[in-house]
Amino acid sequence: MNTIGHLFKLTTFGESHGAAIGGVIDGCPSQLKLDFDFIDTELNRRKTAQTFSASQRKESDRIEWLSGLLDGVTLGTPIAFMVRNEDCKPEDYDALKDIYRPSHADFTYEQKFGIRDWRGGGRASARTTLPIVVAGAIAKQILKGKGIKVFAQVVGMGDAEQAKKEGDTVGGVVECRIEGAPAGLGEPMFGKFSAELAHAMFSIPAVKGFEIGDGFALAGMKGSEANDTFINKEGKIKTLTNHSGGIQGGITNGNDIVFRVAFKPIPSISQPQQTVNRAGETCQIAIEGRHDVCALPRAVVLVEALAAMVTLDAVMMAKECG
Amino acid sequence: MNTIGHLFKLTTFGESHGAAIGGVIDGCPSQLKLDFDFIDTELNRRKTAQTFSASQRKESDRIEWLSGLLDGVTLGTPIAFMVRNEDCKPEDYDALKDIYRPSHADFTYEQKFGIRDWRGGGRASARTTLPIVVAGAIAKQILKGKGIKVFAQVVGMGDAEQAKKEGDTVGGVVECRIEGAPAGLGEPMFGKFSAELAHAMFSIPAVKGFEIGDGFALAGMKGSEANDTFINKEGKIKTLTNHSGGIQGGITNGNDIVFRVAFKPIPSISQPQQTVNRAGETCQIAIEGRHDVCALPRAVVLVEALAAMVTLDAVMMAKECG
Amino acid sequence: MNTIGHLFKLTTFGESHGAAIGGVIDGCPSQLKLDFDFIDTELNRRKTAQTFSASQRKESDRIEWLSGLLDGVTLGTPIAFMVRNEDCKPEDYDALKDIYRPSHADFTYEQKFGIRDWRGGGRASARTTLPIVVAGAIAKQILKGKGIKVFAQVVGMGDAEQAKKEGDTVGGVVECRIEGAPAGLGEPMFGKFSAELAHAMFSIPAVKGFEIGDGFALAGMKGSEANDTFINKEGKIKTLTNHSGGIQGGITNGNDIVFRVAFKPIPSISQPQQTVNRAGETCQIAIEGRHDVCALPRAVVLVEALAAMVTLDAVMMAKECG
Amino acid sequence: MNTIGHLFKLTTFGESHGAAIGGVIDGCPSQLKLDFDFIDTELNRRKTAQTFSASQRKESDRIEWLSGLLDGVTLGTPIAFMVRNEDCKPEDYDALKDIYRPSHADFTYEQKFGIRDWRGGGRASARTTLPIVVAGAIAKQILKGKGIKVFAQVVGMGDAEQAKKEGDTVGGVVECRIEGAPAGLGEPMFGKFSAELAHAMFSIPAVKGFEIGDGFALAGMKGSEANDTFINKEGKIKTLTNHSGGIQGGITNGNDIVFRVAFKPIPSISQPQQTVNRAGETCQIAIEGRHDVCALPRAVVLVEALAAMVTLDAVMMAKECG
Repeated sequence: MNTIGHLFKLTTFGESHGAAIGGVIDGCPSQLKLDFDFIDTELNRRKTAQTFSASQRKESDRIEWLSGLLDGVTLGTPIAFMVRNEDCKPEDYDALKDIYRPSHADFTYEQKFGIRDWRGGGRASARTTLPIVVAGAIAKQILKGKGIKVFAQVVGMGDAEQAKKEGDTVGGVVECRIEGAPAGLGEPMFGKFSAELAHAMFSIPAVKGFEIGDGFALAGMKGSEANDTFINKEGKIKTLTNHSGGIQGGITNGNDIVFRVAFKPIPSISQPQQTVNRAGETCQIAIEGRHDVCALPRAVVLVEALAAMVTLDAVMMAKECG
Repeated sequence: MNTIGHLFKLTTFGESHGAAIGGVIDGCPSQLKLDFDFIDTELNRRKTAQTFSASQRKESDRIEWLSGLLDGVTLGTPIAFMVRNEDCKPEDYDALKDIYRPSHADFTYEQKFGIRDWRGGGRASARTTLPIVVAGAIAKQILKGKGIKVFAQVVGMGDAEQAKKEGDTVGGVVECRIEGAPAGLGEPMFGKFSAELAHAMFSIPAVKGFEIGDGFALAGMKGSEANDTFINKEGKIKTLTNHSGGIQGGITNGNDIVFRVAFKPIPSISQPQQTVNRAGETCQIAIEGRHDVCALPRAVVLVEALAAMVTLDAVMMAKECG
Repeated sequence: MNTIGHLFKLTTFGESHGAAIGGVIDGCPSQLKLDFDFIDTELNRRKTAQTFSASQRKESDRIEWLSGLLDGVTLGTPIAFMVRNEDCKPEDYDALKDIYRPSHADFTYEQKFGIRDWRGGGRASARTTLPIVVAGAIAKQILKGKGIKVFAQVVGMGDAEQAKKEGDTVGGVVECRIEGAPAGLGEPMFGKFSAELAHAMFSIPAVKGFEIGDGFALAGMKGSEANDTFINKEGKIKTLTNHSGGIQGGITNGNDIVFRVAFKPIPSISQPQQTVNRAGETCQIAIEGRHDVCALPRAVVLVEALAAMVTLDAVMMAKECG
Repeated sequence: MNTIGHLFKLTTFGESHGAAIGGVIDGCPSQLKLDFDFIDTELNRRKTAQTFSASQRKESDRIEWLSGLLDGVTLGTPIAFMVRNEDCKPEDYDALKDIYRPSHADFTYEQKFGIRDWRGGGRASARTTLPIVVAGAIAKQILKGKGIKVFAQVVGMGDAEQAKKEGDTVGGVVECRIEGAPAGLGEPMFGKFSAELAHAMFSIPAVKGFEIGDGFALAGMKGSEANDTFINKEGKIKTLTNHSGGIQGGITNGNDIVFRVAFKPIPSISQPQQTVNRAGETCQIAIEGRHDVCALPRAVVLVEALAAMVTLDAVMMAKECG
């Protein structure tokens, strides 16, 4: 359950303050010369995105490549990589050891596993998404060779600077667009392209909503407004509008695939909050430490990474059906 | 890709106008006396839901049980079942054989497979969701024994009677609530309870949006507004509010799980529409035949069924981790 | 766990004396015109193979195709099919309801599921392998188009006619050869071609041994005897000998793939045997009814079918890696 | 395809002369205090087993634990670990860069991936099985707590000291016994306990045969000889003999599970051999370097490790069915 993908598969591991975080990519095509600069660029997009954060954790995020490569070329065998956890300050979290932070995963992890790594959020930390950015960068590189591009942007966000002053946090919405994907991707029943995208996006911490095309707005339309008219555009069948977001019957129709992802505000706020501890006693906390005011700037590259992985996986699945 | 679930698995088969539709449930616990009356009740909820439809297809929907049962008790082996397709009028669809209906799956299926069953939507027909209702009813029966209830309702819908007059269709929103689920369901990274739910819901035809808890509204909140305060309620740790929809860090927290699903309007409208045919020529169609004005009344039981299946699957996954 | 294959997948269902047995093939390439005559021929090979049997069950084995086809051409959607169980004589088995037949699955099924279908062996009956023959015939048809042939034969068997007289049964060995498979099939670590074959063969009832190439004999050889010298045969790299059975490092090398499967004698013998019943009481049984003296004649087509399915699956897996 | 297991899953990575080899265990129960001494003991069994080897590679085999643990206790999250590759002498292999060693995986890997890591066998090296020993040790620790023991031994092997003198190698047979496993493990159709064992064993390099119980010898027996009589042994149902090797109908019957694995001789011999190179030219090689004379001493712990993993996985699968 720490693996995503059917043919292009990523397994991730790691806790925020454990020895390392990393991943294993299984199914990456062989003979691909990895673009390490691009991977670094993507990781930097994630890191420098922390613009609203008061006291970021310093993450060198230097990737160690452990396997699957010969002179930077993929062998077709599993590509394992990791990043050491540095600048760990577990003592920052000592006070939180027995306390369940509101709307965090502390309580639920402990219910599930009977134990949790309380240092920095453990496995539930946003830091554990770093391997997704790496796998996503590789997927993007492969997709680029097929003329497919993925890009996301923030299309709605609360007032972060104001929230910061108030010791508060904000949420927002990211929109993503996949261009150049061929028609025919996705599987009919339980492997719909839209379902795979939704599943992937809900793997990002703090995601609470997902919609494709006009999404929730479609619920208020009539069929005559919502339908996308097919047209012949220079010999290719396209649609005049794209209310469907590039997907019909779960399968891509060759238009841009467009979807939006809603993020709740980061639950770590420095305002005092009431909560309970492990003993069930009511207590008060104010979460200090190095926290972002908003997850979105970091999340953009994550949304793209997962979208790229889902798309590449679907392309590989389609290939064997021809 | 026609299978859903990890331990409680459903594989479905069938096209709208083929010989039969059906499913195989693999992983159902043994020694369960199936409540056939309840299964019929659920199927009737789906059938009689067609209240806005002009000329419904008569579906007796009599289930034939093919395997996995001895005197109505589950053997632990695959439970296969099917429903014959009756009252088929493939000739209704002759005119549509070479035409791509707007916002239907005709074009995308043909792009994917190079062939499609053009009769009544083939595999993309809403009829193919019937096996989900059967598996969902069984899942509900098992969950009931564990004190877990699932129910959904329409919380928003266009004006169906008006749309019918205009030869048009409407969309809407279904809300679902899972009560009594224990804390600790769901897997941390790529098997989050919310991700599994989202995936399942996007398997329903016409679904274009999914949100959990306050969903998209959370994107506009501050952390101090969105956080759910933990409280000690008669010795049990609960939350004061439920903005999270019962899920934190992807894992259930013991509160009600609440989510909403957005449905686009059914694309089959009797108003004339422009489209193209297989040859790429522009043409005009008006879709006659037996179509619903709105998918929602039927969809309520489907949403419940899939929610029940996802919940049962998570319960079974949790059991082996103890 | 009733499913085999990664991309070409078969799920089977059914008990010997239930309503029907059948299967769902998911992942079959679309636009294939099924050769129904060939499928019948394969089913007949299985049926008429019962040459040593005293009183065979009459099985018309007429396949009903339920889905996935349009005018006999595959749609790319799941192909479901079934065979009704006819000529059932459950009363033949009444005496065995509470008795555990030696070396049968009666006891183990009951231990696993707490319940078993005692009529004719239930799910453990050899009859439940019929859907494998169907899927195997389709796999063979596809492989034939790629120049790949699969054939098996009995290479060792006890004296069946003598055993019949004595109310006894015999075992034997089937050898199978896959010709024309390209080099490069199979996955390196846990998806070796040999491992997939072994897994598939052990899915056949009564199989107790599997070896590839020279198999167990290799354990007694020296490296200098066992190694297959590479040679250049008219511009193609081949091996001079084939001790490896066409597989090195788990991956096919382009030579014939050769393996053998050992079958234990059928445990249903009419000689009186001691055993225990459900209450743990010692009792005596003599198994009457319609039983084969040897599983092998029927098993040949089964071995071929599973070998064809494994090979096709590997071909499809290889395709997406290119 | 580098992952084994359904609920207790191991994904391995690494090439012989890459940066590191390692694994990710997903699904390990939480709150388990790992017995690191035992893990080291198991790794030493593998290492010191190299008794017939002329010039072993020095492997410190020091495990770095990367994730999934807090103070040595499992968190329920993925347990990643690795071992750095040290004492690499890739130059030893320079001469073999373009040559296909007989009965090695050089040729087949290149056919599959179009590229191979020629240094020390790359992914096909026996060294890549080290992570299996780690996961197996953890599985054994868990099984021990359930009263289940796994042990293997060499039951047949060529004359290693003689072969060493001759620059040759030998094969052999390992027998493994699983004691204390409950009845009811394994799945009926395509997840038989025997099939899972066979699959796992064929994942070990050089394995060419697998048999369970009396295996191939059963092919020559009559039913009256091969059947295991059920008896009531102090209130427990057992069998008088164990020709079946503890498995009937693919499911464990509560007796010892006994199986044998045949290993071919290691193909790296120092005697001169004829072969071809990448250009298809005939050439001569004599494989120098640090090679074992026989794989078996190392293989014993590997067989145990995989048997333990398969058993634990089946125990976990059984748990959710109750």
